Amino acid sequence: MFHHSSKLQYPVKVDKPNPQFAMLLQQAIGGIEGEIRVAMQYFFQAMGARGDDRIRDMLMSTATEELSHIEMLGHAVALNLEGAPVSYQEETAKDPVMNAILGGANPRHLLSSGLSAMPVNANGVPFDMSHVYATGNIGADMMANVAAESGGRVLATRLYNWTDDHGMKDFLSFLIARDTYHQQQWLAIIEELGGMQAQLPIPNSTPEEHEATEHSYYYLNTLLDKDAPKGRWGEGPSLDGRSQYSIKNTPEPLGQEPSLGGAKPNSGAQTDQVDPAK
Amino acid sequence: MFHHSSKLQYPVKVDKPNPQFAMLLQQAIGGIEGEIRVAMQYFFQAMGARGDDRIRDMLMSTATEELSHIEMLGHAVALNLEGAPVSYQEETAKDPVMNAILGGANPRHLLSSGLSAMPVNANGVPFDMSHVYATGNIGADMMANVAAESGGRVLATRLYNWTDDHGMKDFLSFLIARDTYHQQQWLAIIEELGGMQAQLPIPNSTPEEHEATEHSYYYLNTLLDKDAPKGRWGEGPSLDGRSQYSIKNTPEPLGQEPSLGGAKPNSGAQTDQVDPAK
Amino acid sequence: MFHHSSKLQYPVKVDKPNPQFAMLLQQAIGGIEGEIRVAMQYFFQAMGARGDDRIRDMLMSTATEELSHIEMLGHAVALNLEGAPVSYQEETAKDPVMNAILGGANPRHLLSSGLSAMPVNANGVPFDMSHVYATGNIGADMMANVAAESGGRVLATRLYNWTDDHGMKDFLSFLIARDTYHQQQWLAIIEELGGMQAQLPIPNSTPEEHEATEHSYYYLNTLLDKDAPKGRWGEGPSLDGRSQYSIKNTPEPLGQEPSLGGAKPNSGAQTDQVDPAK
Amino acid sequence: MFHHSSKLQYPVKVDKPNPQFAMLLQQAIGGIEGEIRVAMQYFFQAMGARGDDRIRDMLMSTATEELSHIEMLGHAVALNLEGAPVSYQEETAKDPVMNAILGGANPRHLLSSGLSAMPVNANGVPFDMSHVYATGNIGADMMANVAAESGGRVLATRLYNWTDDHGMKDFLSFLIARDTYHQQQWLAIIEELGGMQAQLPIPNSTPEEHEATEHSYYYLNTLLDKDAPKGRWGEGPSLDGRSQYSIKNTPEPLGQEPSLGGAKPNSGAQTDQVDPAK
Amino acid sequence: MFHHSSKLQYPVKVDKPNPQFAMLLQQAIGGIEGEIRVAMQYFFQAMGARGDDRIRDMLMSTATEELSHIEMLGHAVALNLEGAPVSYQEETAKDPVMNAILGGANPRHLLSSGLSAMPVNANGVPFDMSHVYATGNIGADMMANVAAESGGRVLATRLYNWTDDHGMKDFLSFLIARDTYHQQQWLAIIEELGGMQAQLPIPNSTPEEHEATEHSYYYLNTLLDKDAPKGRWGEGPSLDGRSQYSIKNTPEPLGQEPSLGGAKPNSGAQTDQVDPAK
Amino acid sequence: MFHHSSKLQYPVKVDKPNPQFAMLLQQAIGGIEGEIRVAMQYFFQAMGARGDDRIRDMLMSTATEELSHIEMLGHAVALNLEGAPVSYQEETAKDPVMNAILGGANPRHLLSSGLSAMPVNANGVPFDMSHVYATGNIGADMMANVAAESGGRVLATRLYNWTDDHGMKDFLSFLIARDTYHQQQWLAIIEELGGMQAQLPIPNSTPEEHEATEHSYYYLNTLLDKDAPKGRWGEGPSLDGRSQYSIKNTPEPLGQEPSLGGAKPNSGAQTDQVDPAK
Repeated sequence: MFHHSSKLQYPVKVDKPNPQFAMLLQQAIGGIEGEIRVAMQYFFQAMGARGDDRIRDMLMSTATEELSHIEMLGHAVALNLEGAPVSYQEETAKDPVMNAILGGANPRHLLSSGLSAMPVNANGVPFDMSHVYATGNIGADMMANVAAESGGRVLATRLYNWTDDHGMKDFLSFLIARDTYHQQQWLAIIEELGGMQAQLPIPNSTPEEHEATEHSYYYLNTLLDKDAPKGRWGEGPSLDGRSQYSIKNTPEPLGQEPSLGGAKPNSGAQTDQVDPAK
Repeated sequence: MFHHSSKLQYPVKVDKPNPQFAMLLQQAIGGIEGEIRVAMQYFFQAMGARGDDRIRDMLMSTATEELSHIEMLGHAVALNLEGAPVSYQEETAKDPVMNAILGGANPRHLLSSGLSAMPVNANGVPFDMSHVYATGNIGADMMANVAAESGGRVLATRLYNWTDDHGMKDFLSFLIARDTYHQQQWLAIIEELGGMQAQLPIPNSTPEEHEATEHSYYYLNTLLDKDAPKGRWGEGPSLDGRSQYSIKNTPEPLGQEPSLGGAKPNSGAQTDQVDPAK
Repeated sequence: MFHHSSKLQYPVKVDKPNPQFAMLLQQAIGGIEGEIRVAMQYFFQAMGARGDDRIRDMLMSTATEELSHIEMLGHAVALNLEGAPVSYQEETAKDPVMNAILGGANPRHLLSSGLSAMPVNANGVPFDMSHVYATGNIGADMMANVAAESGGRVLATRLYNWTDDHGMKDFLSFLIARDTYHQQQWLAIIEELGGMQAQLPIPNSTPEEHEATEHSYYYLNTLLDKDAPKGRWGEGPSLDGRSQYSIKNTPEPLGQEPSLGGAKPNSGAQTDQVDPAK
Repeated sequence: MFHHSSKLQYPVKVDKPNPQFAMLLQQAIGGIEGEIRVAMQYFFQAMGARGDDRIRDMLMSTATEELSHIEMLGHAVALNLEGAPVSYQEETAKDPVMNAILGGANPRHLLSSGLSAMPVNANGVPFDMSHVYATGNIGADMMANVAAESGGRVLATRLYNWTDDHGMKDFLSFLIARDTYHQQQWLAIIEELGGMQAQLPIPNSTPEEHEATEHSYYYLNTLLDKDAPKGRWGEGPSLDGRSQYSIKNTPEPLGQEPSLGGAKPNSGAQTDQVDPAK
Repeated sequence: MFHHSSKLQYPVKVDKPNPQFAMLLQQAIGGIEGEIRVAMQYFFQAMGARGDDRIRDMLMSTATEELSHIEMLGHAVALNLEGAPVSYQEETAKDPVMNAILGGANPRHLLSSGLSAMPVNANGVPFDMSHVYATGNIGADMMANVAAESGGRVLATRLYNWTDDHGMKDFLSFLIARDTYHQQQWLAIIEELGGMQAQLPIPNSTPEEHEATEHSYYYLNTLLDKDAPKGRWGEGPSLDGRSQYSIKNTPEPLGQEPSLGGAKPNSGAQTDQVDPAK
Repeated sequence: MFHHSSKLQYPVKVDKPNPQFAMLLQQAIGGIEGEIRVAMQYFFQAMGARGDDRIRDMLMSTATEELSHIEMLGHAVALNLEGAPVSYQEETAKDPVMNAILGGANPRHLLSSGLSAMPVNANGVPFDMSHVYATGNIGADMMANVAAESGGRVLATRLYNWTDDHGMKDFLSFLIARDTYHQQQWLAIIEELGGMQAQLPIPNSTPEEHEATEHSYYYLNTLLDKDAPKGRWGEGPSLDGRSQYSIKNTPEPLGQEPSLGGAKPNSGAQTDQVDPAK
């Protein structure tokens, strides 16, 4: 069950409202790198977390923290929209700084939300929940979480670099810090479970006899005019400790030509496609 | 530039066509764990791969391999749809095995595609390209790729477990094998670049002074009625080698109450919301 | 800032797991009538609530309650999926009850989530955040909330009618009860603000001179072969207290024929469309 | 069956074409507050209107009127795009007014539609039909319609405030007027059916014994650091006339901790998750 | 401006309601081959039809007819849902015919719409308006319309083949007939404008000097292991009358290797990617 | 099986990078008129191509060429983003040319992709695979392909007209040329199969007795205030050679009024809707 405090997790201040930055911040709310995504991803992973209950608790606890991050970002967007113009004036358009606002801001911040945050990204595209990656496999879920927090910190860094607002930089430095931890939090669970070698390949419960292992350890170079690049991926022991890596430079098709024959008479095809023998 | 051989990468045989399995296989084509996703993800990562050209070449080369996987799966779907009924008959409905087909198959395999594969998932939802994760940051991209290949191998394992068709099991054992390698291929790039410690936190180019590092190394327990679970995430040196982990069990809000005051008079709010002082 | 208790808001028990009911319950999680929608709608309305802070607090407080509803439903889905088959067997298909499961369950509960809840509706379509209606106008927001809770209680009623599981019926009777209250909670805010007459038309801050009021109070009957139905909408004082209702039975177009003339020469049109005079 | 007159319902004139306003107007066509939505919503509600045929006729009649509104808005968009530049010139970019057009207009008005309207919103996101709320319950449908018309009039008001074009203001004053009526038209049906008390809770056909009525009349305050705000929602007779409102300030979880135990061996989980006892 | 008659364009009868066929019919309402799509496509093409006003009138007139088709299909869906069960009973599940209904019907017909039509396809995926193809180029628009009507008639044929209901077959034979005409109606406009040779290539207003015409008339065979198939596409005069077709069997890349160099220091990349020289 | 050369199909040069043009080019990558769409459309049509194997080979071969087009466009986008600013500066905003970039560029090129291409359109909306039109009917598929290539060449022409960059114009002249051919390539297959008359109506395998042919050859004029426009569509032999065209100027409804009666008692309707007799 959830509860709420009326104060924000961390102070959110804006020195000089900027409607265009409000639009950019939306990426951190409703983008695929954003906070709705991680909040919901951890929440739904918790819904299906079987096995060690500590992991379920961590998933739900961090999902809860991420909800607090959406809340802070939502307030940051509203503060950046304070003072945005609600009517067009040619005078405004002639001021190049206001002009960038007119042109580069999200018009739906004015038209639809009444100068406040929306669950959309920086292009105004609503977040859709297909981006909640939750497989019921703890290994796959942890990797999805590290990926999400990596994308999140890349985004927070770019927002930090973009703005020249002191309040916003302070707030973003907090988000950057939490992403630093969260990347490692999920990797620490992998450590706790014996490390990457023990967890690979994911799922590690797939019996080896379900796998054509002669195809499990080579890099396939499909480039016609270049040899495979040399590196760790083509030589030495495999990271899962089960084999050695190699390289296949000139792959040949192993399968058949996929011909389907004629269409059925009553299947809505053109007459030319129908094979009466069928 | 791309080229094509008319044969498949690996043989695809179906012993006993099953329209319901055709529907399940769609998840491996158009699902978020599927092959369109990885093909396009590696392709677009290659489009923005700056730095080491070896990585760009690997991304494009493996994108090309994944295109061949879509092709095989597409053929597998068509083969499983051979013999599916194209008209309703109450007799058919009374046969429980056919019944499952009538009920459990994707009706659009009949209505829309004429008994062949579609770029949709097992619910018939079309793949959308927002699932192409490509940040321009090699670390974040590699983690997204490991996550994708982990989800992919979980799915292939579940499809393998579901079917009792020998041809399909052989084909899926090939996909399972390639996913085994691809998980490790992207991790091997991390190894090549100095390993996880060198790459963390992602992006590792963010200056530490842009980060509120006092918030970078603690686990935040938001559960009111339980202490944080103990484990690697709460103690010992951090995985990035920069600090020590700790736990914060009773977090207090650090920020303000987010009150916005009144609405502007001409902003389309209700009169009650308008603060004349504004 | 958000917090969490490790226990559910209300007990969730399933007497006899039913994977098909798991699929139906998804509508209450990820459907447009579902709990993700109301949780996020109240949250984002709170993000933009200007004016009376009591309303902002109520929006956030009830958003928090709705998060707890998602959590309960997520657990209900997982419990209904306990024991679902993970491999196909013709024997299974011959059992008509299992058959309904094979045919009527969501295949992604097996393939994608590992037998747990997903943020999708009963068709497996992911929830998308465009359904978060939040205008910054308290009147419009309250009406959207009453509508959402009405759809929600219709859905809960239909789920209650469908299932014969005692545990599920008990759980749904709780959701039905909370929806009863929430419908009235948002209407009570309208009462608090002077009632419907004071709030209409929404927004009530639009100056009457911005409105072609000669078109504000008649029912327009566009049916060619029937007169307008008689009733409250066509006679008596208007609900906003500003006028009287009437009926316009044979509407004539008041505007012009919308002809655009020729296309520009370099606008990518066919040559036939281009008007050289332009 | 539908018919068409070649003239518009109301005159649509543009004094000074403005491509940026064309983009803003799109919200009234393809936005969730727009005319496609209400046209289709009333149409599909009519498709499922059981009971009083007068209501079905009103739904279809007003759906038809809303189609005429899309038509007028579509023409308004095309008129605002007359004269928009179809090639980039640095000179153009240096003129700040044209600059706002270059930056703030929808590029697909040039690239995709050839300077005419599209079924998209002000961000260029296509309308999707999931926003057609039609439940088969007249009470829920009427509330959804009031909500839609409220959002619509908020939008029309904001567009009116934004533009300085006399022709556009005249046209928008007509839309504002019709929204005034349509809000009340749907509320008048509630009146006709006995008023809000008779219609609540929606659905009013749910037997009280299907409802845990001990949870039906209290406001749940989930805020940890504040008491519930006082008001109509917490005291006095309930709006449905069945009970009295109260407040629950310190809610405790009533349910269990949702632990799922181990994963099945062949379910694609990690080995650590599998409970052999299962 | 639109008007409505209260009767349907053509009689719609269902002899024996079938909830599964209701689900299949949805493809003709909300599928990409369906009637919402053509209604909206012709409508928006009319919104941007510049040049010959006869074409605009035909587009609007046929858009209006297609609205009447949605209406008939909507009624057909509701009639097929009459008598569908609203509660689960194990007895029902044991009846294989009912079983197919339980499994194969759209659960949202029960849960969401109250046994009536929805603007979704046969998978329950809502129609989205991105499928409205309207370019402002009459040639491109006519080809899109022929394509749409071809897909539509393929679908109607498949629905006709599927059902054994006399009423439904009669109704579908009407839709098949109208699609026959509409395919030819749009091709007849091409005829009226001088035929395909005059209209090709689309747009025919593109100056030849904007085109690398040395690449305009050869078939490019990208298959490595097969020569190009022989046929009309590789020999003889081009259909636009401007040249002769030929075949290029062994295409070589003409362009450069696309290397991007290093990333900018402050662009959120990994340190390894950054080229200090940049 | 697919292969790759490391060089581009055609040279891609940018003389003067322009981030706004990068955004416009996205329409040719991820727009409905773009290259992902045709690549995937031809690919999936090949997956279901029954009958003449030459057509399947052409579909796959051209799908492969279109993949090479995405690759070139992806590189063109990255080149246009070289030098885009990664931080806001008021000085920048005052330069009107840079200003257009700030306002008119896609912010996610900075925030999400790190200055490279994404699988989205010019509004930043991700491509979704529902736009892959593949019916299993060769006639319908060919028409869909001509339509796609027509829209594609309209778009390439508009991009050519927009840009003043010599490198980009050269590259676009190549795309325009290939679209010229591809339009005719698919029409040449129609020629090869006997021409349009032989292929119409699509599907030409539908038995005439499944069609209410008395409704197959008239133009239906639904305009109340205008007669049908005269032209080829209303007179002369039909294009399929089966009949003569005519015009129906004053269509009357042929069907019934669609009344559904009352709702079922336990179907979640309002009490007023329920007909106890049912």
